[in-house]
Parts: sequence; structure tokens; C-alpha cells
Amino acid sequence: MHMNKSLQELADYLDGKVIGDPSVLVSGLASLDDAREGEITFLANPRYAAKVASTKASAVVLPPGADGHGKNVIETANPYLAFAKLLTLFHVRSPKPQGVMPGAFVGANVALGADVTVYPGATVLDGSKLGDRVVIYPGAVVYQGVTIGDDVTIHANTVIRERCIIGNRVIIHSGVVIGSDGFGYAPDGEQWFKIPQVGIVIIEDDVEVGANCTIDRAALEVTRIGKGTKIDNLVQIAHNCQIGENCMIVAQVGIAGSTKIGKHVTFAGQSAVVGHLTIGDNSMIGAKSGVACNLPAGSLVSGIPAYDHRQWLKTSAIVPKLPEMKKTLGTLEKRIADLENLLNSKK
Amino acid sequence: MHMNKSLQELADYLDGKVIGDPSVLVSGLASLDDAREGEITFLANPRYAAKVASTKASAVVLPPGADGHGKNVIETANPYLAFAKLLTLFHVRSPKPQGVMPGAFVGANVALGADVTVYPGATVLDGSKLGDRVVIYPGAVVYQGVTIGDDVTIHANTVIRERCIIGNRVIIHSGVVIGSDGFGYAPDGEQWFKIPQVGIVIIEDDVEVGANCTIDRAALEVTRIGKGTKIDNLVQIAHNCQIGENCMIVAQVGIAGSTKIGKHVTFAGQSAVVGHLTIGDNSMIGAKSGVACNLPAGSLVSGIPAYDHRQWLKTSAIVPKLPEMKKTLGTLEKRIADLENLLNSKK
Amino acid sequence: MHMNKSLQELADYLDGKVIGDPSVLVSGLASLDDAREGEITFLANPRYAAKVASTKASAVVLPPGADGHGKNVIETANPYLAFAKLLTLFHVRSPKPQGVMPGAFVGANVALGADVTVYPGATVLDGSKLGDRVVIYPGAVVYQGVTIGDDVTIHANTVIRERCIIGNRVIIHSGVVIGSDGFGYAPDGEQWFKIPQVGIVIIEDDVEVGANCTIDRAALEVTRIGKGTKIDNLVQIAHNCQIGENCMIVAQVGIAGSTKIGKHVTFAGQSAVVGHLTIGDNSMIGAKSGVACNLPAGSLVSGIPAYDHRQWLKTSAIVPKLPEMKKTLGTLEKRIADLENLLNSKK
Repeated sequence: MHMNKSLQELADYLDGKVIGDPSVLVSGLASLDDAREGEITFLANPRYAAKVASTKASAVVLPPGADGHGKNVIETANPYLAFAKLLTLFHVRSPKPQGVMPGAFVGANVALGADVTVYPGATVLDGSKLGDRVVIYPGAVVYQGVTIGDDVTIHANTVIRERCIIGNRVIIHSGVVIGSDGFGYAPDGEQWFKIPQVGIVIIEDDVEVGANCTIDRAALEVTRIGKGTKIDNLVQIAHNCQIGENCMIVAQVGIAGSTKIGKHVTFAGQSAVVGHLTIGDNSMIGAKSGVACNLPAGSLVSGIPAYDHRQWLKTSAIVPKLPEMKKTLGTLEKRIADLENLLNSKK
Repeated sequence: MHMNKSLQELADYLDGKVIGDPSVLVSGLASLDDAREGEITFLANPRYAAKVASTKASAVVLPPGADGHGKNVIETANPYLAFAKLLTLFHVRSPKPQGVMPGAFVGANVALGADVTVYPGATVLDGSKLGDRVVIYPGAVVYQGVTIGDDVTIHANTVIRERCIIGNRVIIHSGVVIGSDGFGYAPDGEQWFKIPQVGIVIIEDDVEVGANCTIDRAALEVTRIGKGTKIDNLVQIAHNCQIGENCMIVAQVGIAGSTKIGKHVTFAGQSAVVGHLTIGDNSMIGAKSGVACNLPAGSLVSGIPAYDHRQWLKTSAIVPKLPEMKKTLGTLEKRIADLENLLNSKK
Repeated sequence: MHMNKSLQELADYLDGKVIGDPSVLVSGLASLDDAREGEITFLANPRYAAKVASTKASAVVLPPGADGHGKNVIETANPYLAFAKLLTLFHVRSPKPQGVMPGAFVGANVALGADVTVYPGATVLDGSKLGDRVVIYPGAVVYQGVTIGDDVTIHANTVIRERCIIGNRVIIHSGVVIGSDGFGYAPDGEQWFKIPQVGIVIIEDDVEVGANCTIDRAALEVTRIGKGTKIDNLVQIAHNCQIGENCMIVAQVGIAGSTKIGKHVTFAGQSAVVGHLTIGDNSMIGAKSGVACNLPAGSLVSGIPAYDHRQWLKTSAIVPKLPEMKKTLGTLEKRIADLENLLNSKK
């Protein structure tokens, strides 16, 4: 895992500019406090700018104009992004392909791309297709007729149900269920008659799905997760939803059936939206909120039911004072009655 | 999968009445917009009645009295139910039994019904009993001494813990855990002493359990899910709960320990109820609500804690106006003080 | 499973005192109502004290000073704890070790302690280490380089990701995912760049983790669950969290990233806390609440956002009366205007 890179090589990788010695060698990264000689560090939060002077790192990634205190510097517009990229460079290795390992089960008519790995205990059923460099960890189950793109990682014990389609560079963490039946029943007197869910799920390129999420297949057509969207753990996405590109869906969120989410929408933890709604691009839904109506692009809402977030902040500060307000109201009522009596008696 | 049925055959299957040509052949179904010749369609929402005139379908399922615009019609009281039944007829096929497949593990003294399928990577431990036509998908694990009825489907990576009992025609989706230990501890100074959970879970006939749900075994006796109840994804049902028949429990609901739910109760998404309560038949719990007291039959509640739903709707419309109300209250207080001062000065 | 113990033996085990015949034999336990001759019962709730007189049990566990109605008695300070201990004594048996069973997959350089059991369909990848008497149920997956202590039970289909560390006497229920990637991305224009999560999870001794929980690995260092903490089902614990000792985290709770929880903190069902906060020892978070600020030790809070629980109780009783309050406010405004007009006209 050891690797040496010159500062110039790192600056090229980060699309940044070297200030100082471009030939200095860097073998890893660490925080301003923990970095040692030979390592690079970064300043993402201006609050810690003073630490740049004292860090033992051999180089520092800084935003434009920050004081380098004479250190070797890579200047870049977004040091936090640079940190993520350096962490990837120094720490992330593609696992060596293992092929279909003993103890894996691969059904009939399965098309395997180049350099796949299927671990022991993993199952790929008939007619599925895996792209190049796909890794299927132990216990993961790919049902019949699934299509998986290139460079996809399916972690242990995840399930992809029949005919679903997974794009390229998708990461699906453990325990996820993609393509389970949507929750649809027709009332039949006292009982519920199951509506067969014959649609599929499509997960587009560069999506990441957190552990133990559930994404249901559509009743008739497609439940879709847009390109680049990132989903945290234990999230529920119901049948027929259309999630846009580059959304952020934090843990334990629930998105009810047939709702359409725009691009770059953020759902904070444990929030939810009811079914058959449309949420505009770049909206943000506050933690634990429940959206019950359509939202235009750029909305920022909180509460159950959700409304304007700034108004919610004001309201939330007042709610705990309701007992006091109620008491005041009672007192005012009394004082008004006294005034009325006084005036009546004077008539 | 191709199949032709005469309109009369379909009417008999749906318990409906043909208006038009009973011999017309139907090979599938689609929406009013998408249906082609040879297909049947349906009108479930009166809003779309005008589309009946323009659909290309060879026949239409209509409610009594709706205008068929001269089309071949099956008249039936509940076209939405008819849609579910037609979808089942045209799209759902029982998988061909495969027996215990290579790579499946079946323990000692396991009783297998006729025509079972146990997929590779599935495990059925000692002393369990599977009914006829049971399908156990890959990675599903049936612990020791479990009893499973006829026509049950256990999807991939679901776990049924020891001694639990599953009825007939039950569908359990992927990643479900049935019979994990209830959450019970006795305080022992600073520490918690585990109370062994020696009861079981009974899932009655015709229940469907969504992906990644958890249903805990009772401390001593039985956690029970009543006949025909449908449970969405990521639902938590704690130990000793008694859930009635034909309930609808939507995604991410939590039902705390020892609570007793009547028949035909609906829990909307992310709602919850605290432990040791009784919820009457035909009650409805609003999305994200938290029930903290017993509810009589027919209750309709929302809020945290939950109260009458209509009152909650009124309240919810006022909550965002609290800052304004508080301001008004302050203004009134000032105006009253002014009036009081005025009157005092006149004394 | 049958076992006979003298009352004296049980009193010694429970650290209690016999009143009556210490030689009476006991073969099991049951509730006051259900117990039969030869069984022992217990009184945990004073409400049922009268049942002590009528129980058929051969002995009763009572708190100090309770009326034994002439029964054979074990007196102990905490009869509920005694019940838990007796249930353990009579009902819990360590399973007989089975070794690595056929159909299990154990990778290279795996260190196995004495008397381990690895079930068929379980996978332990290269370089992991299992302590003595560890049981790995079917379908569980232990990634590379994991360390597991002694007397640990990993239930079916649970996943422990690479390099995580599990203490002694830990119980992890089915479907749990420990060490999945934390949810961290750096914005890169419209897209999200994944921040590699290179830290681990440490689960300390005597922790129990409920079914289908997710505990994410730290970005750089450690997500830690303190000794003796008990976690219910479907709980989300995000990256970098530090959970103290002997906490109680009820089902469907969400703890956001980098939050630090003290000792003996209780999170009731579906509650949550935002990231980067500190929650003091012995705090209690009410069901469905959302904590949005640091809490000192001994806090008792509810609400979204959460505040003092007693204040929340008062407020919650008033919220449903908001429509009435608003109406009163309008009426008062009118009455004040009338008074003002009256006085103005008199000027």
C-alpha cells in the first residue's frame, strides 16, 4: 500500500498549484495535528488556520490566499474535496479480481464481464449479466435476469431481485434489498388482494446505496434512482418513485410511492414525503420532517407537516412557551372582562 | 407466458357481467392510454372516464353504469380489484419446483412437503418442517424447529429464528428477521441483565412481510401477526405484540412491546405506538404519528402524541402562525395596559 | 433441559434469603397465574401482591417485607432481576460446539478459538480471528481482518466489515451490518465525491445489537459502542459516533455522525440526535424526539426539536387547543377594539 508521490504529481492530480518545492515526496495524508514528516495535510476549516504554522506535515493543501507559513503548499479552490481525493489516492485499492470463487453459485446463462469476483456464498441466478470488474461479496443474491454494469460493488448479503438494472460504478452496501415487491393491494371486502408488482428498479450510474436500504420495484414500470444520487442506511424508497440526479438521502428517510424528486435534493435524517408528490430541484427537507404537498424548486422546509424552514425555526422557539401563552391569554381575558365591567358600571 | 382468454372467461373469473361480445379474445392488460388491440383495460378513477372512448383496448372493465362508449365491457363493482386480479392472471406464474438444489443446506430431521424449492445458499436447520410448494430463496436461513405452511415464499437472505411458526400462503420478502430476541433487560446496578426471550413468533395465513422488517419473538409466549395483515418494508414489531387480521402497516412503522392491535387497523408510514396499549379495530394512525394512549375502535388520529386527526389538521394549519399569534398577544397586552392606565388616570 | 434445584440453591444463585423450606425442589418458573406445583414464581409488581396467596407455585420470589402468605419464599431486593436470572438458569443452554461445519467457508490465515461453531453458509474471510466459543450462524459474513472476542454470537446473515473489532460476550442479531462505509462526500460541482471511509467500528464487551441495525465505520478512526450498551432493532449509528457504556437504544433510533453519547443514556423508539453533539450521562430522550443541541448529564427531553420533557408534556396538552386559543385571541382583539372605541368616543 506504500506509495510516494511528488508534490507536483499531487498538484496535477488535484488540479491545484504548487507553492514551494514541487519535488518534495509525500507518502500519505493526515490531519493538521496528526501529520508527520513525509505526509501532506489540508486546511478545510478557516478556524484552524493557525495550525498550519505548527503542523509537522511536509506539505499543506490550502485554499487560495491562505497563509502557508512558509510550508510547501498546494493551492486549490476546495481543500475538502482535495482531502477526499488524496484519501482515495493513498487508501483505496481495487481488489485483485478472484473470478468465481469456490462456494459461489452462478446459474445458467449468466454473462460474466472481465475480471469479476464472485465470493463464496454469493448467488447469481439464471440469465443475469455482470459487467467488467464487478465484485459480488459473500451472501449477496442476484435473482434471475438482472443486469449489472461495470465497476459495481455489491456488498455481502445484499439482494437484487429479478430483472432490475444497475448502472456503472454503483456501490451497494450490505443488507440492501433492491426490487422487492411494492406495497400495493386492492380491498376485497375485509381482505387485501395483492396487486402483482411486475415492474423493475433502475439504479443509474455512480449511485451509492447504504446498508439495509429497501428500494421497491414498480407496480408496472420503473422505480428509478438518478445518476450520482447517494443514499444513506435504512432508507425506504417505495414503488414507482423517480429520484433525480445527485440527491442526498440521509439515514432512515422514507419516500412514499410514485413521488418524483428533482435533482440535487437533500433529505435530512428520518424525514419523509408522502406519495404522488413532486419535489423541485435543489430542495432541502429538514430532519424528521414530513412533506405533505408538492414543493417548488429551491424549497427549504421543516416540520410535520413541513413548511418554510425559517418560519419553522421561529415557531419551534415558541412552541415550548405555549403553556405561558395560554396563561397570558387567560389573564388578558380576565383583565378585559374587568375593564368591560368597569365601563359598564360607569355607564 | 402468452395466454388468450375470452371476455366471458374473464368475466367469470372477475365475477362480472359482459356487455358486448363475450367471445372476443384478450391476451393481456394495460392502462387506458397504453392498451392495444387484443388487450383489456379498466376504469378505476371516474376522472378518466372520457378515455374509455379513445382507448385502443378490445375490452374495458367498468363500474356499473359507466358509459362504455360502445366498447366490449365487463361490468364489475370494483374495477381496481379486477385490475389486480387480471394482473395476477396474466403475469403471475408459480415457479417450477426445483427440489433441494445443489448448494442448499438442509439439516437433520427436516420434513419437506411436496414440490418445495430450496435454492443454493439457503439453509434449513434441524427439525424444521416445510409445507407443500414452499420456496426458500438463496441465503434465507430457517433455524431449528421452525414450522412453515403450504405455498409460502421466503425471499433471499430472510431469517426465521428457532421454533417460529409461519402459516399458509405467507410471503416474506428479503432481509426480514422473524423471531429475533425481544428487547428485554432487568437493571442490575449500572448494568443490564438480559431477560432470555424464550417465546416465539406466529405469522398467520396470508400475511405478507416487506423487506428488512424485524418481528421479535415473545419473552415467554407469542408475538402474533393476524391473518391477512400486510406489512411494508423496514417495520419493527416488538416482542409480545398481537396484531389483528387484515391490518395495513406501512413502511418504517414501529410497534412497541406487548401492544395489541385490532382488526383492519392502518398505520401510515413512520408512525409508531408505545408499548402495552390497545388499538381498536378499524383505526387509522396518521403518517409520522406517535400513539401514546389506548384507542377505541374506529379512531382516526395524528400527531406526536396523537389525537383526533381532524383536530390535528386544524392545529397544523395554526402552528406556523404561532410567531404571529405571540406577537398579537404582546400587542393586546400592551393595549390592555394602556386601557387600564387610561381608566386609572380617570378615577 | 429438565433440571431440579433446591430453594436454597436458587437463593444462593440469586443472592437472596430463604423463608420457609430450603429443601423444596424447583424445576422451572412461571407467572403467578400460570405456575404449577414444582415451579417457582415471582412478584415484580406490587399490584399483583394478592395473587401470591392463590398461586399454585411451590415457591415465590418476593421483595423484602412482602407478604408471603405462608408460601416458601426467596426474598431479594429485585425480584424482576431474579426472574431474568431464573429464566436464564432454566431456559438458556450453550449450544454444543460444532466446529467449522460442511458448507461453511473459512478463508486463509483465519485464527479460530476453541470450541467455535461456523454454520453452513457462513463466511469468514482471510486474516480474521475468532475467540473461544464463538458461534457464527448461517449466512453471516465476516470480512477480512476482523477480530472477534470470546463467547460471541453472530446470528444469521449479519455482516461484519473488514478490520472491525468485536469484544467478548457480544450478541449480534440477524441482518446487522457493522462497519459499512460512513456517509461522507465532498461536493464537486453538481456531483458528490466519495470520501473513503478508512476507519473501523469497535464493539466493546457485553454489547447486544438488535436485528437489521447499521453501524457505520469511521471516516478515519473509530466508531465505538461502549461496554454493556444494548441496541434494539433497525437502529442507525453513523460514522465516528462514540456511544458510552450501558446505554439503551430502542428500535429505529438514528444517531448522526460524530455525536458523543455518555453512559447510561436512554434513547426511546424512533428518536434521533443530529451530528457533532455531546449528550451527557444518564440522559433520557423521549420517543420520536429529535435532539438538536448538546445536553448536560441527567437531561430528560422530548419534542422536535427536543426540550425539557416536563415542559413538553404541558405543551403537548395545549397544542390540540391551538384552534380554540386562536379563536379566543381573535375575540379578545375585538373586545379590546370595542373598549378602545368606547373610550375614544368618551374623550
